[in-house]
Amino acid sequence: MTMSVDIEYASQLDEQDPLAHFRERFVIADPDLIYLDGNSLGRLPRDTVDLAEDVLHGQWGARLIRSWNEGWFEAPERVGAKIARLIGAQADEVIVADSTSVNLFKLVVAALRAQSGRSRILTDDLNFPSDLYILQGAIDLLDKQHQLEIIPSVDGIHGPVAELQAALDDQVALVILSHTVFKSGYIYDMSAITAAAHAVGALVLWDLSHSVGSVPVDLHAAQADMAIGCTYKYLNGGPGAPAFLSIRRDLQSSLNNPINGWMGQKNLFNFDLVYQPAAGLRSFLTGTAPIISLSLIESGVDLILEAGLDNLRTKSELQSEYLVGLWRTLLRPLGFTLNSPDNVRLRGSHVSLGHAEGLRIDLMLLNDMNVLPDFRAPDNIRLGIAPLYTTFRDIHTAVIRLRRIVVEKLYEKYSTDAPIVT
Amino acid sequence: MTMSVDIEYASQLDEQDPLAHFRERFVIADPDLIYLDGNSLGRLPRDTVDLAEDVLHGQWGARLIRSWNEGWFEAPERVGAKIARLIGAQADEVIVADSTSVNLFKLVVAALRAQSGRSRILTDDLNFPSDLYILQGAIDLLDKQHQLEIIPSVDGIHGPVAELQAALDDQVALVILSHTVFKSGYIYDMSAITAAAHAVGALVLWDLSHSVGSVPVDLHAAQADMAIGCTYKYLNGGPGAPAFLSIRRDLQSSLNNPINGWMGQKNLFNFDLVYQPAAGLRSFLTGTAPIISLSLIESGVDLILEAGLDNLRTKSELQSEYLVGLWRTLLRPLGFTLNSPDNVRLRGSHVSLGHAEGLRIDLMLLNDMNVLPDFRAPDNIRLGIAPLYTTFRDIHTAVIRLRRIVVEKLYEKYSTDAPIVT
Repeated sequence: MTMSVDIEYASQLDEQDPLAHFRERFVIADPDLIYLDGNSLGRLPRDTVDLAEDVLHGQWGARLIRSWNEGWFEAPERVGAKIARLIGAQADEVIVADSTSVNLFKLVVAALRAQSGRSRILTDDLNFPSDLYILQGAIDLLDKQHQLEIIPSVDGIHGPVAELQAALDDQVALVILSHTVFKSGYIYDMSAITAAAHAVGALVLWDLSHSVGSVPVDLHAAQADMAIGCTYKYLNGGPGAPAFLSIRRDLQSSLNNPINGWMGQKNLFNFDLVYQPAAGLRSFLTGTAPIISLSLIESGVDLILEAGLDNLRTKSELQSEYLVGLWRTLLRPLGFTLNSPDNVRLRGSHVSLGHAEGLRIDLMLLNDMNVLPDFRAPDNIRLGIAPLYTTFRDIHTAVIRLRRIVVEKLYEKYSTDAPIVT
Repeated sequence: MTMSVDIEYASQLDEQDPLAHFRERFVIADPDLIYLDGNSLGRLPRDTVDLAEDVLHGQWGARLIRSWNEGWFEAPERVGAKIARLIGAQADEVIVADSTSVNLFKLVVAALRAQSGRSRILTDDLNFPSDLYILQGAIDLLDKQHQLEIIPSVDGIHGPVAELQAALDDQVALVILSHTVFKSGYIYDMSAITAAAHAVGALVLWDLSHSVGSVPVDLHAAQADMAIGCTYKYLNGGPGAPAFLSIRRDLQSSLNNPINGWMGQKNLFNFDLVYQPAAGLRSFLTGTAPIISLSLIESGVDLILEAGLDNLRTKSELQSEYLVGLWRTLLRPLGFTLNSPDNVRLRGSHVSLGHAEGLRIDLMLLNDMNVLPDFRAPDNIRLGIAPLYTTFRDIHTAVIRLRRIVVEKLYEKYSTDAPIVT
């Protein structure tokens, strides 16, 4: 079967897809909607609807406060242990808490205090901006002595690996990178960067938000120090669901959470007036977790575990290669650029296409064509592939509509200064 | 009608209760359960069940990522503005975010940095312990130059008002107190403490967790500077639902959130590499909020607004006086002490009863008698009155069972070294 731009070919690929039946495990309210934004907000799993019924009626409604001793206290560790299986960590190396921003804050402050005497922090300009904001705030708070160095990507697509490695020296306290970067989808070589950082005594923190549940990660093999990530993208955990953090076991006792909250205390019901941290990762909990949002993550993670991450990656690579193939034939001639790595091994589960009219094309897709990608300034239309429910026909249809918008100049319906809304 | 210890009298009080019908607005899974822990976890409102259906299916399931522009981005302010009406704040002076612990951390760090040159922080030993933990962590993080002074309560029940006022001087940066204290239920005079603190240039931060939705609070009248509070007690917002924070308007521009997260940024979708805070209280948002837990708070707050806080307080006072009256006649002779203020005006919506066998009595209530209070070490049985759904018969039944447990020594079923579980 050779690559074809016909819809029939897409249908054949769907028929041969061993994961195709997982689409039925999700609530599909509008079967005609082409949803290519699972990398921003995953779909609602049907199992989550059942779980929500139990959490609401069975746990909150009926068992009330007793539910704390019937699963709620352990939920951060229970869900964390399942996420651990997706990122090559041990069960006690991952915990669910707060948001990615707050988790990053806690880990950065802890790491910088543990690395006293070292003043440099390295990251790149492909990192998610709010990771940089957290770093700026933490530096300002701690002592203003640290320097945040944002190494620029050469082409805006691939990570500046050589430049990062060249910048490493014994003054570097911390390297912080997105494993899969949010705009281009480039995937860093976690082992190589971590090893280079460790060689000069630096710690490395990985933001796994765009990797977890779509790209295989092995924190243990890479000897990675710390990680954070969100649960509402490929894990289908629900809008704004609590995030996770990971610290490798032998580092846990040397890092201290600066936010000494109720749930991170050793003896919750002793009501001691002086804080004593709980053992292990529980000391990185802060206040009481939003139990409903936290609980609903679990059924999303279970679906990924059931499908198997390697199977999902295989399908994701097939689908993103299919999309890039269609781009080459149908979209490149119309001025679309590939703003993601050409090499599928270096590419996560989303593909960014650039176009001079990117924003107006995006608005046309969203509002008039029932296709939901997302848009990342200045010109990126980001097409997310979530192999649990994205079909080859979805991808084909999106490309055909993108083509039509440009060929027929349909985007001219929208103003050039329309605000960015997603 | 004179006070009587008969159940018929309780029934009469229920019949005369103008708020009695609000009990039907809640899911009551077990009509025989005497639930006196609404001060720890409020019950599930029926409207919340409907709202959850909409958030899950209508918003997440059907509208997917589009829901961010259809209400999710504004949810922290929308729910905050409703809570503002319960605590005497303006709509733009309250926002929902994170947990009480994280909100306290943000405000304490911001306030201490704004109050540079002042080294003292005052609180009392009636404050919730994790508020002290957060303070200890913040001091340790900032510069270790601040001193946290925990003023002891004279009797363990009433706030050390005179001692706090005597301790105020121009070195005090911040006074932090629970408005209604968690163990005894004592209510501070917010205006008096705030005025005394302001007279020496100190800022005051109030933890409203045990007040909001049960005790009238007027931040504006008291000219209070800052407040935090949780939404899962009397607001019935759901287990661990996100907390709120408040900063009075003219102070907002001089306080800076140390956790520079994604949602506190001025232009979310510009992806600037340098943080610029949003205007007003939005700058105190951090990462993406847990939308399901956050959304479900709203129907709980709406119920309080519908019933009217003054009506709720009137019923709460009647019920807690009724409970104290029953204690006086039926429980005091058996060794129960009143560990809450005797004066109803100084008492929030829960009543603490002490007993030498407190923990074993509590275990008997919980496990064998279908009464759910909670227990606070060393000997406090905390009976929470949530006037939206607590009946006079509930209170009567709980007292009769407490009496029986002691008269018949039923508590001897439990070991004296049983662990505290709630």
